[in-house]
Amino acid sequence: MSSNTFGKLLSVTTFGESHGPAIGCVVDGCPPGLPLEASEFRADLERRATGRSRHTSQRREADDIEILSGVYEGVTTGTPIALLIRNTDARSKDYGNILDTFRPGHADYTYWQKYGVRDPRGGGRSSARETTMRVAAGVIAKKWLAHRYGVTVQGHVSQVGEVTPRGFEPAAIETSPFFWPFAEQIPELEAYMDALRKSGDSVGARVTVVADGVPPGWGEPIYGKLDGEIAAAMMSINAVKGVEIGDGFDAVAQRGTQHRDEMTAQGFLSNHAGGILGGIATGQPVVVSMAFKPTSSILVPGRSVDRAGHATEVVTKGRHDPCVGIRAVPIAEAMLALVLMDQALRHRAQCGDVAAVAPRIPGTVQE
Amino acid sequence: MSSNTFGKLLSVTTFGESHGPAIGCVVDGCPPGLPLEASEFRADLERRATGRSRHTSQRREADDIEILSGVYEGVTTGTPIALLIRNTDARSKDYGNILDTFRPGHADYTYWQKYGVRDPRGGGRSSARETTMRVAAGVIAKKWLAHRYGVTVQGHVSQVGEVTPRGFEPAAIETSPFFWPFAEQIPELEAYMDALRKSGDSVGARVTVVADGVPPGWGEPIYGKLDGEIAAAMMSINAVKGVEIGDGFDAVAQRGTQHRDEMTAQGFLSNHAGGILGGIATGQPVVVSMAFKPTSSILVPGRSVDRAGHATEVVTKGRHDPCVGIRAVPIAEAMLALVLMDQALRHRAQCGDVAAVAPRIPGTVQE
Amino acid sequence: MSSNTFGKLLSVTTFGESHGPAIGCVVDGCPPGLPLEASEFRADLERRATGRSRHTSQRREADDIEILSGVYEGVTTGTPIALLIRNTDARSKDYGNILDTFRPGHADYTYWQKYGVRDPRGGGRSSARETTMRVAAGVIAKKWLAHRYGVTVQGHVSQVGEVTPRGFEPAAIETSPFFWPFAEQIPELEAYMDALRKSGDSVGARVTVVADGVPPGWGEPIYGKLDGEIAAAMMSINAVKGVEIGDGFDAVAQRGTQHRDEMTAQGFLSNHAGGILGGIATGQPVVVSMAFKPTSSILVPGRSVDRAGHATEVVTKGRHDPCVGIRAVPIAEAMLALVLMDQALRHRAQCGDVAAVAPRIPGTVQE
Amino acid sequence: MSSNTFGKLLSVTTFGESHGPAIGCVVDGCPPGLPLEASEFRADLERRATGRSRHTSQRREADDIEILSGVYEGVTTGTPIALLIRNTDARSKDYGNILDTFRPGHADYTYWQKYGVRDPRGGGRSSARETTMRVAAGVIAKKWLAHRYGVTVQGHVSQVGEVTPRGFEPAAIETSPFFWPFAEQIPELEAYMDALRKSGDSVGARVTVVADGVPPGWGEPIYGKLDGEIAAAMMSINAVKGVEIGDGFDAVAQRGTQHRDEMTAQGFLSNHAGGILGGIATGQPVVVSMAFKPTSSILVPGRSVDRAGHATEVVTKGRHDPCVGIRAVPIAEAMLALVLMDQALRHRAQCGDVAAVAPRIPGTVQE
Repeated sequence: MSSNTFGKLLSVTTFGESHGPAIGCVVDGCPPGLPLEASEFRADLERRATGRSRHTSQRREADDIEILSGVYEGVTTGTPIALLIRNTDARSKDYGNILDTFRPGHADYTYWQKYGVRDPRGGGRSSARETTMRVAAGVIAKKWLAHRYGVTVQGHVSQVGEVTPRGFEPAAIETSPFFWPFAEQIPELEAYMDALRKSGDSVGARVTVVADGVPPGWGEPIYGKLDGEIAAAMMSINAVKGVEIGDGFDAVAQRGTQHRDEMTAQGFLSNHAGGILGGIATGQPVVVSMAFKPTSSILVPGRSVDRAGHATEVVTKGRHDPCVGIRAVPIAEAMLALVLMDQALRHRAQCGDVAAVAPRIPGTVQE
Repeated sequence: MSSNTFGKLLSVTTFGESHGPAIGCVVDGCPPGLPLEASEFRADLERRATGRSRHTSQRREADDIEILSGVYEGVTTGTPIALLIRNTDARSKDYGNILDTFRPGHADYTYWQKYGVRDPRGGGRSSARETTMRVAAGVIAKKWLAHRYGVTVQGHVSQVGEVTPRGFEPAAIETSPFFWPFAEQIPELEAYMDALRKSGDSVGARVTVVADGVPPGWGEPIYGKLDGEIAAAMMSINAVKGVEIGDGFDAVAQRGTQHRDEMTAQGFLSNHAGGILGGIATGQPVVVSMAFKPTSSILVPGRSVDRAGHATEVVTKGRHDPCVGIRAVPIAEAMLALVLMDQALRHRAQCGDVAAVAPRIPGTVQE
Repeated sequence: MSSNTFGKLLSVTTFGESHGPAIGCVVDGCPPGLPLEASEFRADLERRATGRSRHTSQRREADDIEILSGVYEGVTTGTPIALLIRNTDARSKDYGNILDTFRPGHADYTYWQKYGVRDPRGGGRSSARETTMRVAAGVIAKKWLAHRYGVTVQGHVSQVGEVTPRGFEPAAIETSPFFWPFAEQIPELEAYMDALRKSGDSVGARVTVVADGVPPGWGEPIYGKLDGEIAAAMMSINAVKGVEIGDGFDAVAQRGTQHRDEMTAQGFLSNHAGGILGGIATGQPVVVSMAFKPTSSILVPGRSVDRAGHATEVVTKGRHDPCVGIRAVPIAEAMLALVLMDQALRHRAQCGDVAAVAPRIPGTVQE
Repeated sequence: MSSNTFGKLLSVTTFGESHGPAIGCVVDGCPPGLPLEASEFRADLERRATGRSRHTSQRREADDIEILSGVYEGVTTGTPIALLIRNTDARSKDYGNILDTFRPGHADYTYWQKYGVRDPRGGGRSSARETTMRVAAGVIAKKWLAHRYGVTVQGHVSQVGEVTPRGFEPAAIETSPFFWPFAEQIPELEAYMDALRKSGDSVGARVTVVADGVPPGWGEPIYGKLDGEIAAAMMSINAVKGVEIGDGFDAVAQRGTQHRDEMTAQGFLSNHAGGILGGIATGQPVVVSMAFKPTSSILVPGRSVDRAGHATEVVTKGRHDPCVGIRAVPIAEAMLALVLMDQALRHRAQCGDVAAVAPRIPGTVQE
């Protein structure tokens, strides 16, 4: 019921403010017997970290995870796994004027209206700092999915502003500073970002995440649909304004003959559905895309009001990440992994006894 | 936890198969004292009904709601409100061959993989028949929101195939057979739909729903975000493949200077955010759009497999609705109303004591 | 979250007022493939029925269950199972004065304070009529537990007023009008009840339920403890004022050497714990007892106030069941079965992969 | 859904093993604006602490709480409040042999059967160490209840072994080493406990907690009953084997004329019900009692088996608390406070609009 908890059978509760003493999470429901060490969180936290390249903002946290519980002699025990990161880079004075001003595009005004009080330091609870713990929890989910079911989850940036990839090279994604799937475009993108930063402005992005190997049958009908839960998970990420499954909004202009994925004994002939029908996985890749709005904290001054209701002007000094969508890739991966693991556990609770059903159609076959 | 239950403090549990004896729902958590009669459900059920015009499918149910509990002498008592509709138009024999065949684009294959058994009559539980009860529950939520807070919820079709409205006339929406906001285009749309039906094909649609009067502060941070719950609600509607809040995917190509909604003491200067920041309502209109895929049940034959794994061909005979998105308008309204009422109850639980906070910025002011 | 829903993975939502049009429930989460027919509910509903003997109250309902959904061709499909009973014996006029008077020992006053409105006919929602649907849901849980795991659940009356069984004959329980485990005492009990009825008074009872065959490992630590959930389930039954696991309150005066259940490779040497340690089943019989208060509706007049705050006197005319605890036996069985099935599903979600662990100690061995 | 989370609108998630790096909790749903400082936790943690007197075990933790989030400038902000205590007294070597042996009366065997792995140090997750965080969370609930509604919660020991209080002096409770309500009996009790300790044995206890000032109307019907949730809360405390509301098991032998609490305009004439009717508070004191089993860790050797299935003998060396029920008093208070705060929030969500209802009957009046 708590709005700081995500998931049903695998539940993640996060806590912490951007510039408070610490952030952390409690991951509950992970099956016993999964090997897990603190060092395993580092890779994905690095991928998410601000400061990954000059194109994302400069804050740099060690972000060393401490495992406080739930692991004994390097193996999960089935009890809740608590993870903690101390905030070391909390420069409160940078944010002094935010206390009295509502930054456009930020949650300052809405938290104020809701609670009548807020922690303004670095955005407090509404800061993207919270997503660090989603990434950490996602590391556990990714590992369990891979170990137990061979499911993999991989994201990439599929649009920055008006720029789209001119090709798709899976190997390029992780070597690029932008999780961009086409190496040849990197210099062009770097110039684009540099120009943007100089102008003091920002731009939106589109991120796509794909899960491979999801067994048919995962997911639940009606209000527990796999796509419904993915939509909630993705829309809960800071700055997301839209979510698509498979062809998403392109389906509006499609014909039924075009969209429906025909089947043969050799496999589905297409995957417009993005791997989900009726809320349940088909066994094809699960494909999810999100729209990220442009960073709201920019150098170009913006009009606002202060707590007394007077007109004021807001300028964000210091750190400035011209495209927040880029470093959201590991966050989106984490959320998809968490949804899938939760659904996997729910599936085996209710349908663990269901005998293997023939025929199981293989993944997409392009004729 | 149940996947047939939606909402936390206002919870709706639906049950029933398309061609079973009945469909129904239990609405739990409605405050006492709301006047409610069975006749009040008729209008929205009619709006949703198949058979509304020649452009939606021909099945026609009386769909008379019976209130089984929770209302005494015309007023809600705070106990669960159970609603029931008997299925009267259950022509099982029409669907005989569906038992052994997996219709492309339908949930036949995925239910089979999940459960190893399914009720094939009319699509069983995966039929859009279930959404009748969402509309019914939504009637209660809409009424409570209007009575208690003056919140209104209104949807319209904002795209059919490649056709978009050339103007916006609120009064046109309810008089059109398509929930279309521009009267002048109706003949054109009718011709479009007739051609589509003749070709045996179908097309997608875009639906937009707007809630006016939502008080700033409704919604919860992180995993209980107002937009996150809206996304889950909308994606749970049959045939939805994408959800947007405010500018949605248009934000990808926007600049920060363009997207952020500046504020003055006289009001917000724009509403790109769609009325939500940090998961909490700003007080501006809440704007949500969805992509509906084209109807999967079409006359044009499609390749598939049967339960024995043999290649087969599927043709949907009889009823054929060339654009399922159209009659989804009242369903989408209902889901938005349910999310808002749930969030309203949650807000007053946690923040009912918060003193009115100044300044409260008025709704959008276009300069 | 709904207070009319019980259970996490197997969830039961009930609805309906004592004298409204109908009562019903939605059972969600039952695995697919369980054979189920409407006739199977009859036996337990009869066991619970008022009118079972002259010693329980005279109301007589046909209580014919209709299965509205979730079952196809006699087998559960994994979708929600809705059950409905029409109220046929709703004599509203009997209860006219209850509208303005708060009966001592009843929920009239508290519902009024909470909701400001209530359905007074027959106690409305607070009537034990609601427990009919618990029994119905329990039939499904009992059947699944027996089919899938060989678990059986059986209750009996272990005290009426000051009378306790002088022996324990399992076979006597179901042949007795009192679920009493010692046949020889029946005439004595009948005389006791007749005298009570003549005096216009009532008496409390103690009920004990035992589940045999529960596998070690079912249950969850901390706030999801098997005994914690049993306690909630039992205390939620009308008129229950106390719950015990195993030795219960007798443990207060016991010594540690006496209470702890020692183990040998041949089995536990005793079962003071009632089959649960740390919230998790030991594999021994799960033993639960409840205290039922005496019936509040009695012929002896009682002082009360009316809605205007004036002193008044309450006399219950007509039906009068001198010991409500007796017919609670099948209700208590149902609640225990529902808790166990829910825990079974949760266990296989989280620990379904855990390899069989040696040594598994057999059930109780008395040296 | 998580079994390490308690409560619906006020939810508490605890984590940590007895001898792991730390224990902690996340309290979510506390309204904003409540003053809160780390020093406020000290008093109740001391009351619970082992080492309170020579009659409870010798382990001594500083138990300094660190507030990690949710509080800004000494006031709650409405975001999750995380509390942390580092474990400083983790002497792992003391517990070496527990790894391979199942201590009678402990959860060693059941955790092993459930998870196939466990953290044996100090009992791991099943240790009463976890209850430290319940007490901490309870401090917040107690404070909010007192500030906002004037509700107070106070517990005492109402039986130790066969000894019961010969009088009731509220002032004596907190000055006694046993939370005992009658000062004159303290020397007698000390002798009793000393003799018990010398014999190497232990004894059970009965604890009673009373909440004063609970407004009529708090609580929810059916499965969310105030008494049902209290029962679950109390039964979830380590070593509890029984829970009673009001007269509890004494009601079994009572007559209806005796048990029902008659009402006059001046007040209820008795409180056999313990302040709850139909799951909803009457406005009288809420009275709850629990049975605690005798400590399982005792010096007298007990028979058991080891992981290889061989017979062995268990002796608990070192710390030995002959009556665990005594220091459970603040734990039971905390659980009752948490249930009440949760119910208070739920009540104002659903019934916050209900106009004040006349007549409101005052608390108990003894004629």
